[in-house]
Amino acid sequence: MSTSPSPENLRMQIRRGKHTGMTSGLCQGYVQCNLVILPTAWAADFTQFCLANPKPCPLIATSKPGEFKLPELGLDVDIRTDISSYRVFEDGLLTDERSDIRSLWRDDLVVFLLGCSFSFEEAILAEGLDVRNISEGRNVPMYRTNIDCEPAGPFSGKMVVSMRPFNKPDATRATDISARFPRVHGAPVHYGSPELIGIKDINNPDYGEAVTINSDEEPLFWACGVTPQVALEQAKPPFCITHSPGCMLVTDVLNSNFESK
Amino acid sequence: MSTSPSPENLRMQIRRGKHTGMTSGLCQGYVQCNLVILPTAWAADFTQFCLANPKPCPLIATSKPGEFKLPELGLDVDIRTDISSYRVFEDGLLTDERSDIRSLWRDDLVVFLLGCSFSFEEAILAEGLDVRNISEGRNVPMYRTNIDCEPAGPFSGKMVVSMRPFNKPDATRATDISARFPRVHGAPVHYGSPELIGIKDINNPDYGEAVTINSDEEPLFWACGVTPQVALEQAKPPFCITHSPGCMLVTDVLNSNFESK
Repeated sequence: MSTSPSPENLRMQIRRGKHTGMTSGLCQGYVQCNLVILPTAWAADFTQFCLANPKPCPLIATSKPGEFKLPELGLDVDIRTDISSYRVFEDGLLTDERSDIRSLWRDDLVVFLLGCSFSFEEAILAEGLDVRNISEGRNVPMYRTNIDCEPAGPFSGKMVVSMRPFNKPDATRATDISARFPRVHGAPVHYGSPELIGIKDINNPDYGEAVTINSDEEPLFWACGVTPQVALEQAKPPFCITHSPGCMLVTDVLNSNFESK
Repeated sequence: MSTSPSPENLRMQIRRGKHTGMTSGLCQGYVQCNLVILPTAWAADFTQFCLANPKPCPLIATSKPGEFKLPELGLDVDIRTDISSYRVFEDGLLTDERSDIRSLWRDDLVVFLLGCSFSFEEAILAEGLDVRNISEGRNVPMYRTNIDCEPAGPFSGKMVVSMRPFNKPDATRATDISARFPRVHGAPVHYGSPELIGIKDINNPDYGEAVTINSDEEPLFWACGVTPQVALEQAKPPFCITHSPGCMLVTDVLNSNFESK
């Protein structure tokens, strides 16, 4: 197993096209972020959507219009080049997927970075619990629920959740551990009965892949960072850029900085 | 003892000039908020300052430029009239204190509402602990520390903390209770040794009033909503409006909605 690079080193590799693809499992210990970029005219409503729905949309940083440097997340960070794959949406439709957005940059674009479940998964693993999607090498299973987000301007939609199964004692511990990380989704929003939150078939997730649930285990559901993407699809802004799934911004911020003590 | 009005009723009384002064102790169970209003040109940096310093500056809601209605905090809320006393600052200097800001309203103003310690104090009281500033009928003592906030654009400064004393077992409980409320300052930032965070004389607070600390008690320090006011004084925006101390926006949001489960 090779040593993982530092966040700065990984960002440099991504910027130079030497690292492509996902960032999961890399730079353990450091916060990774979901990305949304919107025109200024849409920024205030999206900010309010995030503040009103902090569990699925935990806002970590935002930029001034036109600003692509984010020194608070890493001195060298340039959001136009430091993510390995970007998705470009026009009027809500995916129109492009690319590894560099410098040629698309505009002075009216505002950057939003949102917390990601990697941080609390790492904390759960660190306490010796089994995180099923990791031990089975799959993308975490995610489901659209019947839980309405608080709307804000054009942004609304159902909450998307991710699921990790645990036996009873481990479920309590996983809940307590993730509750200490409110800036990266926090404690589960539901556990036990998928049907109560509108999930018909736990073995058939809407995104990601199903994982094994053993007979002594119950499913725990966490608010998921796909929620803002669903709200964006519905709001259909004229122009929007996000990261491609799994290709996050790797920051210099330690996960431990995000833990409530 | 008279029955407390509903938040909607209290806001109506404030709007009509029938309730003046502080809101502490009123509308128990409901979230009260600190207010900051800034011109659009200053809004992105202030948003980032809040996101980078979530313990002293927990951002609960924000508005579009020019928008004075905040239906997510209460259907009828008009931020120009629903606070009993406003402070107006020009170039960092307090120039006016008034009960209505309709005549000062501008299309470029952005509203920020931040969490307040009343919410976690209520939760601590509800579990039977003594909150000294309440039992002694004083303003909570607050101190400037030597802890630097994360800067964002023109905003920077030292963190201001509030102090409440507890004996050892109660200190643990107060910590655990407040940790469940990350959107209203969360767990203490320090306990035990005031000198380690730059507080020279615990009996001589920089704001508020000193409270009794018994010999079996230790002081617990929470990040305080005065911190953004200090950052604003230093940044000196050309125009800024805040609430007057203790005169908060009373919302329709239940404190229990802000508790991490």
